[in-house]
Amino acid sequence: MGWLADETGLDRCAANYVPLTPLSFLTRGREVFADREALVYGRTRRTYADYAARVSRLASALAGAGIAPGDVVSTLLPNVPPHAEAHFGVPAAGAVLNAINVRLDADTVAYILGHGGARLILCDSAFVPLAEEAVAMMEDEAPRIVECPDDEAGVAATGRHTTYEDFLAGGDPEAPWRMPQDEWESLALNYTSGTTGRPKGVVYHHRGAYLNAMGQVLSWRMVLHPRYLTIVPLFHCNGWCHTWMMPAIGGTVVCCRDIAAKPIFEAIADETVTHFGGAPIVLNLLVNAKEADRRTFDHVVEVFTAGAPPAPSILSRIEPMGFHVTQVYGLTETYGPATECYWREEWGDLQGDDRAAMKARQGVAMPFMEPVVIWDENGRPLPRDGGHQGEIVMRGNGVMKGYYRNPEATEKAFRGGWFHSEDLAVQHPEGHVQIADRAKDIIISGGENVSSVEVEAAVMAHPAVSLCAVVAMADEKWGEVPCAFVELKDGAKASEAELIAHVRSRLAGFKTPKKVVFRELPKTSTGKIQKFELRTLLKSGAC
Amino acid sequence: MGWLADETGLDRCAANYVPLTPLSFLTRGREVFADREALVYGRTRRTYADYAARVSRLASALAGAGIAPGDVVSTLLPNVPPHAEAHFGVPAAGAVLNAINVRLDADTVAYILGHGGARLILCDSAFVPLAEEAVAMMEDEAPRIVECPDDEAGVAATGRHTTYEDFLAGGDPEAPWRMPQDEWESLALNYTSGTTGRPKGVVYHHRGAYLNAMGQVLSWRMVLHPRYLTIVPLFHCNGWCHTWMMPAIGGTVVCCRDIAAKPIFEAIADETVTHFGGAPIVLNLLVNAKEADRRTFDHVVEVFTAGAPPAPSILSRIEPMGFHVTQVYGLTETYGPATECYWREEWGDLQGDDRAAMKARQGVAMPFMEPVVIWDENGRPLPRDGGHQGEIVMRGNGVMKGYYRNPEATEKAFRGGWFHSEDLAVQHPEGHVQIADRAKDIIISGGENVSSVEVEAAVMAHPAVSLCAVVAMADEKWGEVPCAFVELKDGAKASEAELIAHVRSRLAGFKTPKKVVFRELPKTSTGKIQKFELRTLLKSGAC
Ligand SMILES: Nc1ncnc2c1ncn2[C@@H]1O[C@H](COP(=O)(O)OP(=O)(O)OP(=O)(O)O)[C@@H](O)[C@H]1O
Ligand SMILES: Nc1ncnc2c1ncn2[C@@H]1O[C@H](COP(=O)(O)OP(=O)(O)OP(=O)(O)O)[C@@H](O)[C@H]1O
Ligand SMILES: [Mg+2]
Ligand SMILES: [Mg+2]
Repeated sequence: MGWLADETGLDRCAANYVPLTPLSFLTRGREVFADREALVYGRTRRTYADYAARVSRLASALAGAGIAPGDVVSTLLPNVPPHAEAHFGVPAAGAVLNAINVRLDADTVAYILGHGGARLILCDSAFVPLAEEAVAMMEDEAPRIVECPDDEAGVAATGRHTTYEDFLAGGDPEAPWRMPQDEWESLALNYTSGTTGRPKGVVYHHRGAYLNAMGQVLSWRMVLHPRYLTIVPLFHCNGWCHTWMMPAIGGTVVCCRDIAAKPIFEAIADETVTHFGGAPIVLNLLVNAKEADRRTFDHVVEVFTAGAPPAPSILSRIEPMGFHVTQVYGLTETYGPATECYWREEWGDLQGDDRAAMKARQGVAMPFMEPVVIWDENGRPLPRDGGHQGEIVMRGNGVMKGYYRNPEATEKAFRGGWFHSEDLAVQHPEGHVQIADRAKDIIISGGENVSSVEVEAAVMAHPAVSLCAVVAMADEKWGEVPCAFVELKDGAKASEAELIAHVRSRLAGFKTPKKVVFRELPKTSTGKIQKFELRTLLKSGAC
Repeated sequence: MGWLADETGLDRCAANYVPLTPLSFLTRGREVFADREALVYGRTRRTYADYAARVSRLASALAGAGIAPGDVVSTLLPNVPPHAEAHFGVPAAGAVLNAINVRLDADTVAYILGHGGARLILCDSAFVPLAEEAVAMMEDEAPRIVECPDDEAGVAATGRHTTYEDFLAGGDPEAPWRMPQDEWESLALNYTSGTTGRPKGVVYHHRGAYLNAMGQVLSWRMVLHPRYLTIVPLFHCNGWCHTWMMPAIGGTVVCCRDIAAKPIFEAIADETVTHFGGAPIVLNLLVNAKEADRRTFDHVVEVFTAGAPPAPSILSRIEPMGFHVTQVYGLTETYGPATECYWREEWGDLQGDDRAAMKARQGVAMPFMEPVVIWDENGRPLPRDGGHQGEIVMRGNGVMKGYYRNPEATEKAFRGGWFHSEDLAVQHPEGHVQIADRAKDIIISGGENVSSVEVEAAVMAHPAVSLCAVVAMADEKWGEVPCAFVELKDGAKASEAELIAHVRSRLAGFKTPKKVVFRELPKTSTGKIQKFELRTLLKSGAC
């Protein structure tokens, strides 16, 4: 290996080795960007100096409240300033941040608090009842609640718990931060979306969050001082690490509590937002916004979208509005996005369906990941021919430490030295992967693989359809057949037969849904459709 | 520290931990940017696929020639494609790259080859005589020479050694690379400029080069696909790590063999160069270029300049020509630039002298370094008041492993857990450092510190002066007094008395040179003035 003949005196020491941590972005930003705007929320505007001072306060107040290094501090917060502050303040106390999805039921919240062993919850006043309910259900020692009222949104304190500002007042704005001694120390504990079942506790290390943030800057074509709008919830893979990334480049985090077309357009026009990430459903919101909610702007907004490929019909409408959309793909297990649909030079200025077809690919590994590959069930690499379908496996510095208190699941996910995504994809000759489906969602009809995603795209191409999910339905003859669940656009109409005929004109017979159910689709709080619930519905015969 | 209550199963493994190395930028770039232009030199144009294939050839040919991991491979090359290829091909063989300054004398080259224990030299045909002379002087086992003729520059092979292309022909374009098992493995061995004495062998690790490259992308405001011109010699801190950086962002390396105004302007205009680094002397070249050598262009070129602050007179002329200049500062020991003169928002649109005064600061730590501080002789931090002068000390992931085969010098440089730069500076309240002088160059006159840099700036402000260096001259009464060595502009005239009066009108008497010597200044190959030679001249009474 690459060791010189004589390595005497060439070891690591304090001068030449510092553990990687996203905290370092803010210790640097605190000085370099001191007077620049770090955080914006309505009338609240904080400079980097203020931001860092509040982080110091939070870290020292946590220590004062008995939070020791390695303790878990949870949040139940929307994308408001205290949530951004917690992303630095909790690890600056040496503690581990556990941002919990605010739209979960009390039972799941109680499970997460117990499983993670939370010692304290920073909780928006609107979610105090949820937190209290969850805490009441816990058998383990219950965490203390510190509540964050939100003047900007008119959310008043309940009066039952210390408020965040009072808590901070007890901290020291100059308190030094506890920096990790080892970049492998735990930074965050994030429970998966629960799209496929009980959420698992994914543990992040400092090194991974640092490298992910640096790498995404490159992928996202960011230069110094971007203005970033928080649409991805901070409780979802820590908002794809974007809050940690911002101080690396002196960016501004523009907070957005409620995800709706009007405030998004306002933020773009009034706060000159340059970047945001969000599920395709957010793009939907924007293209379908009412005239009154829209605003025009001169710049181009760089959008990362993940969770599902952006629909061609949405893409063709949103790009002319001033948005440049790049699909990214990842999992809670990979700190959020780990691949990007890098636009290749030879695709040039493709338009229309050809453009959408390329943008529908999940793409190639981001800079902090090793090349992504697809494997068959026996762990053999499959050819990159756009035809063979296999599981996406990944490795790299943007992969979790593992699942908390679940070494079996960790070992299974990491078998053979690669992280198994449970997503099925083909790989195109130039390396872009394209997801066919989740392993659990693929429909096997008469021995043929049917990608639920492909059928959904065909259904969505119908002008009356707003949203669609296709799942397997048991069938005596074929084993499984596709069944489509559909939300129609406001005021639009379409019959089951009409939609079936529409799909049949585009896809082979065995891919065409045998049944169409019109109803609201069950979604996770990040907008993902919970197909397991639809399958349960089908099995129960409820539709 | 930040360890969870239960860390079972959360250890590093192949799935979640990959040693950082700049090689990974090209393993990724090879695929992601396959058909994009990676390397340009005259009529030579190589895509990323070609570039990486040639790197594979080189790595496997080196292995075939008996180069084992940890062996040292030297280069004596200008900034031509083989030099860029060696930056990847040598470490891809597990070997350590030792790029040697082509303008050194045979004696020093022999010293470096012997000290580093080089096994093979990749040598431009123009420097084969130098290499042969050096090799002949060696007592240790001599390295093999592989020579690189340069058709583009009309440099023919000597016929005495295997040529680079023949050597590559024996390699395998698909050979896998040896990636480091440990990011602390040695990547490169760079001898310091020798401005202050015998060059020291600085050892770089893979981790540092990776992080330096990523961090500089941020500081340099690079987005994907920059077009980078190699002006900083690749043998000088590996061209500030820029060649390693390019594949991270799919950039193009435009090679420049001879540093002169005409080819630089041509590259900017014809190859749309967007970024280059260089000593202030390069900026000099551009502003003083003959009309016939100039070209106009529409874009702005981002320039990093280091080695000395850019002179106000140069700055005010070069910026309107389409160059945006940022001063950076670093040492061979810090992989090149480690600080940047970040332009603070509150400086707004400063112009003229005020602008130049700010741009004259060496600035703040780049993202991969911890905050820079200044210390007094006893290792106590000094106030940031723009007045107190102390030594710049640094720590961070962009600091060398140490000096090769010189643990004493390493220990001294790292005393107290910080790297000691031997540069004296003040620190301004907002954190920017400003170098007064090298510790060795400061002049102590009647007990007062006189910065040679400050006196030089005053001399340079005279319209007839092209270049100036001020050193200490022994004086019976004052201990030391300043003595100025001056190069005049072509055709310009000025007398000793005139220059002394010019400086006296700007600076205090004790700072005014007592003597002016008109002569060509001795420079290192990177354009730095070797003051130790001027001091020797003075001592010898030769002037
Ligand atoms: N761009 C994308 N295109 C298609 N699918 C995507 C994309 N991005 C993410 N996904 C899907 O989202 C999954 C990751 O989501 P996440 O980690 O939030 O939780 P989940 O997998 O939905 O929930 P759980 O693991 O609890 O079932 C991926 O495995 C993939 O199936
Ligand atoms: N922007 C700058 N402004 C002022 N001085 C600079 C700047 N950048 C670099 N330098 C000087 O260059 C030095 C680093 O140069 P380098 O490592 O190439 O070798 P050297 O120090 O000149 O040679 P040696 O160490 O062998 O004497 C710094 O210590 C500093 O004195
Ligand atoms: Mg999952
Ligand atoms: Mg030096």
